[in-house]
Amino acid sequence: MSIRVVAENYVREDAVGDYLAIARELVEKTNELDRGCVSYQLARDLSDPLRFAVIEEWEDQASLDAHMKSEHFTRLIPELGKFGSGKPGGILVFERVY
Amino acid sequence: MSIRVVAENYVREDAVGDYLAIARELVEKTNELDRGCVSYQLARDLSDPLRFAVIEEWEDQASLDAHMKSEHFTRLIPELGKFGSGKPGGILVFERVY
Repeated sequence: MSIRVVAENYVREDAVGDYLAIARELVEKTNELDRGCVSYQLARDLSDPLRFAVIEEWEDQASLDAHMKSEHFTRLIPELGKFGSGKPGGILVFERVY
Repeated sequence: MSIRVVAENYVREDAVGDYLAIARELVEKTNELDRGCVSYQLARDLSDPLRFAVIEEWEDQASLDAHMKSEHFTRLIPELGKFGSGKPGGILVFERVY
C-alpha cells in the first residue's frame, strides 16, 4: 500500500509570497522528477491562511526516501524553513489501509 | 482548486478490528457513490497504530457538503465514533494551492 505524508507549516504573514514561490518549485519538481510520486500538493487551511500542508502520496517508502535525498528537496526545504512563524508544524507519515 | 480534508481519529486498541470494518464500508461507498470525490482513503500512522486518518480530495466544497449529507456518511460516522479512545482527533479542511 502507498505511503501518505501530511507535512504542516505555519508561515509568517510577511513571508507568504516568498513561501508560495519556493513551494511552487518544490511541488513542480517533485511531480515532474521523482519516481514513485503519486500525488504531491500544497494546500492552505481554509480556517487559518498562515497554515499550509504538503499532502503527499508515494508508491512506497523507498520512493519517499529517494525524494528526501533529491536536489530540489535538500535545496528548497531549508529555504522554506526560513519563512516559518515559529509555531511548530509537524510531519505525519501514514500507510494507506484502503 | 480542489478541497483537501485530513480527518484524524484515535481508536481504542480493542476496537481496531471493528473500526477497520466500518471504515472500509465508508471508503468504498464514498468512492463508488459520491460525485466530485477525487480520492478518499483510510491511512494508519506508521508511528502510532491507533492513530488513523481519512485523507480526502474533493472537486469543490459542494461535493464535500453533499458527501456529509449522504446516507453512508450519516450512518457510519456515528458508528466509527463509538470506537474512539477518547483522545481528540481533528478535522482539517484545506484548499489546494498547487
